[in-house]
Amino acid sequence: MAEPTKILLDESELPTHWYNVIPDLPEPPPPPLHPGTHQPVGPEDLAPLFPMGLILQEVTGERYVEIPEAVREVYRLWRPSPLYRAHNLERHLDTPARIYFKYEGVSPAGSHKPNTAVPQAYYNAAEGVERLTTETGAGQWGSALAFACAQFGLGCEVWQVAASFTQKPYRASMMRLWGATVHSSPSELTAAGRAVLAEHPDSPGSLGIAISEAVEAALADEQTKYALGSVLNHVLLHQTVIGEEALLQLAKVGDTPDLIVGCTGGGSNFAGLFFPFLREKLAGRMAPSILAVEPAACPSLTKGEYRYDFGDVAGMTPLMKMHTLGHDFIPDPIHAGGLRYHGMSPLLSHLYELGLFEAEAIDQTQCFDAALTFARTQGIVPAPEPTHAIAAAVREAERCRETGESKVILTALCGHGHFDMAAYDAYLSGQLRDHDYPAEAVAEAMARVPVVED
Amino acid sequence: MAEPTKILLDESELPTHWYNVIPDLPEPPPPPLHPGTHQPVGPEDLAPLFPMGLILQEVTGERYVEIPEAVREVYRLWRPSPLYRAHNLERHLDTPARIYFKYEGVSPAGSHKPNTAVPQAYYNAAEGVERLTTETGAGQWGSALAFACAQFGLGCEVWQVAASFTQKPYRASMMRLWGATVHSSPSELTAAGRAVLAEHPDSPGSLGIAISEAVEAALADEQTKYALGSVLNHVLLHQTVIGEEALLQLAKVGDTPDLIVGCTGGGSNFAGLFFPFLREKLAGRMAPSILAVEPAACPSLTKGEYRYDFGDVAGMTPLMKMHTLGHDFIPDPIHAGGLRYHGMSPLLSHLYELGLFEAEAIDQTQCFDAALTFARTQGIVPAPEPTHAIAAAVREAERCRETGESKVILTALCGHGHFDMAAYDAYLSGQLRDHDYPAEAVAEAMARVPVVED
Repeated sequence: MAEPTKILLDESELPTHWYNVIPDLPEPPPPPLHPGTHQPVGPEDLAPLFPMGLILQEVTGERYVEIPEAVREVYRLWRPSPLYRAHNLERHLDTPARIYFKYEGVSPAGSHKPNTAVPQAYYNAAEGVERLTTETGAGQWGSALAFACAQFGLGCEVWQVAASFTQKPYRASMMRLWGATVHSSPSELTAAGRAVLAEHPDSPGSLGIAISEAVEAALADEQTKYALGSVLNHVLLHQTVIGEEALLQLAKVGDTPDLIVGCTGGGSNFAGLFFPFLREKLAGRMAPSILAVEPAACPSLTKGEYRYDFGDVAGMTPLMKMHTLGHDFIPDPIHAGGLRYHGMSPLLSHLYELGLFEAEAIDQTQCFDAALTFARTQGIVPAPEPTHAIAAAVREAERCRETGESKVILTALCGHGHFDMAAYDAYLSGQLRDHDYPAEAVAEAMARVPVVED
Repeated sequence: MAEPTKILLDESELPTHWYNVIPDLPEPPPPPLHPGTHQPVGPEDLAPLFPMGLILQEVTGERYVEIPEAVREVYRLWRPSPLYRAHNLERHLDTPARIYFKYEGVSPAGSHKPNTAVPQAYYNAAEGVERLTTETGAGQWGSALAFACAQFGLGCEVWQVAASFTQKPYRASMMRLWGATVHSSPSELTAAGRAVLAEHPDSPGSLGIAISEAVEAALADEQTKYALGSVLNHVLLHQTVIGEEALLQLAKVGDTPDLIVGCTGGGSNFAGLFFPFLREKLAGRMAPSILAVEPAACPSLTKGEYRYDFGDVAGMTPLMKMHTLGHDFIPDPIHAGGLRYHGMSPLLSHLYELGLFEAEAIDQTQCFDAALTFARTQGIVPAPEPTHAIAAAVREAERCRETGESKVILTALCGHGHFDMAAYDAYLSGQLRDHDYPAEAVAEAMARVPVVED
């Protein structure tokens, strides 16, 4: 019997707890601050937007948070997700490295996003909330939340960035199929949207505007709350189910990772993969290198400053200490829409400052080169976001070919690319280009970041 | 521990053999006939189009055909595929029935088609063939073959029906990503295509024209052969891996099916699911009802005549005894493109005549109603084709609610609908309509079917 292609877990091995990395850190992350008073925000400040169950997770000091059985029941529609050994890719690269990828594209929405959408819908439903609002860009998060709301009988209202709403209509179709209402943003439905439209009737929208609309709609109705798909502590917490499973799966084949690599936008998929391995590393049980890969056109970790900034363009969120390119910086339209965010999760930013992982930026053509190789060997068509992690894994495997090292490389394939074929069309027709790091635009945006005394 | 949601098999449980139903039948199916002489065709007649490895499988009398290890290795990229227990759907329907679905959407191409594309590419490569041609409609088969050819280093050239090529460009993107060349059909590249274009420069194409182009291209080059995605015996044989796995999976949870239901176009997915269960039934080890569901707009089994006809519009194939609506009948443009075929697999047609399964036709709006319920409960977005099987399963489960029977229903979810969201858009916006059975067009087409003395 050859070494397996897929390492599967039985449903009885589905993790029972999410892992909270904060108690294991040498120091806790800096608190979010109220935008007016610059004082730490308390649970009550967040209560208009989030249910108390999630707010408590946002600030918890417990190392483990139990996954409610109702959430595990929905997880079982696709979890535990498979860990793949990339035999074909290894052979193609002629490398002694052993490449594993944890595949989250098996979820109904096709990415890791339902890992947090499901508990977010659950805790809201448990507290009597009737409807959730959110924003979405290309639509991965919006479709995940639409799916999760259908599971718990919640209404779901999504503001999708107008450019994506028009150019990639099928993610919105998917949201509607699951029962959500989808609006092109900016919309006439909110004051924030109307203000933009009054000035720019043809505005293509932005994630920042869409956030403002979704937040405004949630605040306007007592039975409605808001959901965010990355960045926050409770989102990263929910995603640790990925890493906990991967730990069990690697143990089944007797391997421990030498390198863990993931792509970062807001950071939740990467964090979800590596936090449980970091716990093992901090306890001295393994010693993997840990690498975040971000797009060269939006390199918040490698080029951003670590300081307090807003999470949204309009400045409606609390101030969060994070790596940022400036809250009103608009990244170039790279195809990895999920990585086009000006900031980085505050928790991940803190870990980066503590030196607990490394980061680098890669250009999108190099990512698509790796994606082509991956698709032709392993079959799966990756979403543009995880091609960043694949590119780094391929490069490391090629390095192993030179050195002869049989390193164990673990990466996250956080979603399939079935709704991103236009990006592959651009690549295959030679129209895909790289975007230089927009130093000037970032400098201008950074000049508008509020000054906060730590 | 609750009853599992997914019944998984280990890779070591992947079937080692495909099952050939023919030796277990009370009489063999009638042979295909040469279109000129009306004499049975021999292996040598098929040699210009197919490699000998597949021709021998087409006519084999062995009950079991070993799956080559190289094919099993590629199968392991997604096989064994999961068998799901549809707990959520059952609860929603408030039924005592136990509904299982075998999910083939986990393959790289998103359907059951790679189950045969992979061995077809393998046997061609093993005999030194360098390139395969094929036709495709919406693109499920073309993308499966493109994937399979990439695995074995074969070139792949696909003629896609022009209407689909234009309206659903992303399946062609997927084929190109896997290295295939894709042409809109009719094309200027073949005499058959040029003849059509000379008369109809704006021809939207048809599967029949595309077959003629792919066959012509294969015949024009010694290193090139042709591949077909359904209908033929060897295709049905390869698909039996589905049913063999499902047998093992149901045994793990101690259930035997009372009803097996699948959708039929050419018939390969349905046959692949039920042939192994039919073996068990003929041996007296179980007694399931077996039901094929076809679209009301293209009901070859329930309304077609059982007689010799061509497999393609142009009359280039051997004459095959099958249920047919007439080889030049053009079905209405229903969304289940994979079920828009004028004929039915000769082997399945023979089994139908022997009374070994039943068939019915269902309208597409009823199918999409069931698909919406399925997507909102189980999460997975089904391709339009398997919604026919889901509709029948839902109806039977509702009947069980009335009678109190806890029947075990097994169905095949042969693919996801990620590339079919336009169909859901039409449904959700109320624009989807049913197509009456076109009795007059069928009668006209049947008048053009050649008369063959049996």
